Amino acid sequence: MKKYLLVAALIISSLQADDPLPSWKSGKVKQALLDFINNTTDKKSPKYIPEAERIATFDQDGTLWVEHPVYTQLQYCLDHAKSKSSQEQDLEKLAMQTSSGMSVAQFQKDVSSWLATAKHPRWQRPYTELTYLPMQELLTYFRASGYKTYIVTGGGQDFVRVYSDKVYGIPPEQVIGTAISTKFTYDTSGKPYLLKEPNLLLNDNYAGKPEGIHMMIGRRPKASFGNSTGDKEMLEYVDGLALIVLHDDAEREYAYGPAQNLPDTEIGTFTQELYNEAKAKGWLIVSMKSDWKKIFSFEE
Amino acid sequence: MKKYLLVAALIISSLQADDPLPSWKSGKVKQALLDFINNTTDKKSPKYIPEAERIATFDQDGTLWVEHPVYTQLQYCLDHAKSKSSQEQDLEKLAMQTSSGMSVAQFQKDVSSWLATAKHPRWQRPYTELTYLPMQELLTYFRASGYKTYIVTGGGQDFVRVYSDKVYGIPPEQVIGTAISTKFTYDTSGKPYLLKEPNLLLNDNYAGKPEGIHMMIGRRPKASFGNSTGDKEMLEYVDGLALIVLHDDAEREYAYGPAQNLPDTEIGTFTQELYNEAKAKGWLIVSMKSDWKKIFSFEE
Repeated sequence: MKKYLLVAALIISSLQADDPLPSWKSGKVKQALLDFINNTTDKKSPKYIPEAERIATFDQDGTLWVEHPVYTQLQYCLDHAKSKSSQEQDLEKLAMQTSSGMSVAQFQKDVSSWLATAKHPRWQRPYTELTYLPMQELLTYFRASGYKTYIVTGGGQDFVRVYSDKVYGIPPEQVIGTAISTKFTYDTSGKPYLLKEPNLLLNDNYAGKPEGIHMMIGRRPKASFGNSTGDKEMLEYVDGLALIVLHDDAEREYAYGPAQNLPDTEIGTFTQELYNEAKAKGWLIVSMKSDWKKIFSFEE
Repeated sequence: MKKYLLVAALIISSLQADDPLPSWKSGKVKQALLDFINNTTDKKSPKYIPEAERIATFDQDGTLWVEHPVYTQLQYCLDHAKSKSSQEQDLEKLAMQTSSGMSVAQFQKDVSSWLATAKHPRWQRPYTELTYLPMQELLTYFRASGYKTYIVTGGGQDFVRVYSDKVYGIPPEQVIGTAISTKFTYDTSGKPYLLKEPNLLLNDNYAGKPEGIHMMIGRRPKASFGNSTGDKEMLEYVDGLALIVLHDDAEREYAYGPAQNLPDTEIGTFTQELYNEAKAKGWLIVSMKSDWKKIFSFEE
């Protein structure tokens, strides 16, 4: 009898090991994700996609990591403005002020230093630890299935590129974000460098997301993941799977948006209208509360 | 004796098979290319580069394929303007006129059709056959050595992306070029598409090359290949190997630039000043006449 139990335990543990999405609860959403990968990577399936065309795009704030109470990058800007005694009130101007007028290398250094010490007010952990474990599993699963994974964020491209590889396994060339121009110039010793200038080149939100995807990738994604109206056009543009994350878990994370009948906030707006469009078009809606066993890797 | 000859023949053929650059003549330039790859991929070398950082950027016109008597894309614009009875004389306006005001998909279709029938006036072959065999070997060699190869062209990004994969093995997401904006919009049935608009987003020439590389890749290339003043800033920006192609073979291709004391032309200017800079900085200068055994794959 003991022997049978051992065999059963081995089978179960092997099945678990074979589950590419262990933090996802079994159900419609998880099954749809598994089916999508199975179908698009199976040469015999009518839904098969050649590997070169397997592009998956992920929004960051609210989709891959926490965006409340404020976007991580906004917190960076606020902290930096404070240290520079800025009186700037306009958020867009503030972001521009704290990310231009310096070399790309200096900006990267500033972001790295800040990330090494800044902590999220609720969890008292570095922001880079506040990524969603189920989404990390998805990134890994998609890559293991031959997909190129991209971040397509309204956040600053140069900001996210500082940590994207370390935090998500996504190299800088696969990060598309809001970008300001740079100017190629020379230092006093004649060495060339890039100076960040206060000119908006790409506003990677709303229609800017598919437009940015076209500029940077030149192909339509086969899967796209978002969580707000800023992702709507990207989700409409996808040629395949569209998914939105619904923040409905006030206990483990935050609850906002249509599921709670809460008013839209400035951050991460997921309007009733978007919810209706998602339902009508058959996009996958992920309930953080019901679909995710575990949200953060540090959870017990 | 016959047996020895056979063995010798086998050794020679095996040596040839092991040569990743068979169309390059032995000499300083070829050796420098082999050394660069050996050093940057050898973990024991002080010049070793981790695979993720192996980025190589290639100019297209005059570096990867023929740019005389006019750039291929300019010929496309001229042909299309003619078919539209345009009287446009300004080249920049002409290019804008023939590549905007339509969907991305329509533009790609137009380019494909044109490439299928248009022929180079001298060789009477499709333009896509006029790539330089030694440079194709370099692309293959770099990729086999873990380098990501990019085209960084002054030509139109959407234009080059139509054929880059087929012609160079470079996917659309690794083509950086002069880009106009697109507008995300919907057709009458509500289906989204991207409309090409007559607004210049990136002029991917001169300083625009390193600026474009930063926007699209976010890393400094470890090797860059060019042939004109339009590539100067990209070659200065490289963190490693810089190479320029000198067009000095009037018989097999064209001769222009400083080697012939010819005046600079509008197309593919390689000035004496650039030549001097290349010499002073130790950039590799490739003589098409002396360094390339064979220029085109169709040569006898």
